[in-house]
Amino acid sequence: MADALYLEDLHVGQTFTTGSVTVTAEAIKAFARDYDPQPFHLDEAAAEASLFGGLAASGWHTAALSMRLLVDGLPIAGGLIGVGGETTWPRPTRPGDVLTVHIEVTEITPSKSRSDRGMVRTRNETRNQHGEPVQISNLGIVAWRRPVA
Amino acid sequence: MADALYLEDLHVGQTFTTGSVTVTAEAIKAFARDYDPQPFHLDEAAAEASLFGGLAASGWHTAALSMRLLVDGLPIAGGLIGVGGETTWPRPTRPGDVLTVHIEVTEITPSKSRSDRGMVRTRNETRNQHGEPVQISNLGIVAWRRPVA
Repeated sequence: MADALYLEDLHVGQTFTTGSVTVTAEAIKAFARDYDPQPFHLDEAAAEASLFGGLAASGWHTAALSMRLLVDGLPIAGGLIGVGGETTWPRPTRPGDVLTVHIEVTEITPSKSRSDRGMVRTRNETRNQHGEPVQISNLGIVAWRRPVA
Repeated sequence: MADALYLEDLHVGQTFTTGSVTVTAEAIKAFARDYDPQPFHLDEAAAEASLFGGLAASGWHTAALSMRLLVDGLPIAGGLIGVGGETTWPRPTRPGDVLTVHIEVTEITPSKSRSDRGMVRTRNETRNQHGEPVQISNLGIVAWRRPVA
């Protein structure tokens, strides 16, 4: 993994690409059983007859997998602490999809009240193996200034 | 469960309250191992020393649990299909927390192109047992018109 990134190491327009994860039908169903137990996330035949036209991952599964890719691929010093953001799912994640997150730093705001940190906004596009976005998120994360040696 | 809700059954200002779920330290760590493997979500001692000051659930875990409560507690006909939304985590979910989602319908927009459906925006506040919000989300979901008999 690359060196940990401090606030000073980041700039607007900077991009990162994470590793990838392959999504299986079993993983889609396992997540759905725990967190989103609806027929189109649990059962191929029921999913065929639904709006999705086939088994589709819960959007929250796509979000969780994207977070996993970000944690492994964006080495912010002190960890990746999100304060929230906006998430949309332009198309579903399907069994066999290989997901990668493309990150762009869109805004950096040093904290006015706490001189040791700042807020970094990132635009994160989770794309499948065809380059199509399955999730677009705008996530605010905390970044720390490099400690004085 | 209540009768399934169609677009005609919903109105701005309408509220719903879901059931509840208790969050254990084991569940927090299990989710984190799969989707957000950072020390403050995995280990009590490391979490003590972090910004969180103690074990805290991944925000995406809170989001997934909130979805589970919504699926069980908001019986939209045809299922709960979210198109996305904005999510913030005002405070972390802690081991032992009992979460409940308070839902309010904030906007209803019938589709212009498809007469069988509309978009419903909901404000969903996930609160702990002290009534404190751990997540506020503004989720857009698809609702269907009641089929003509």
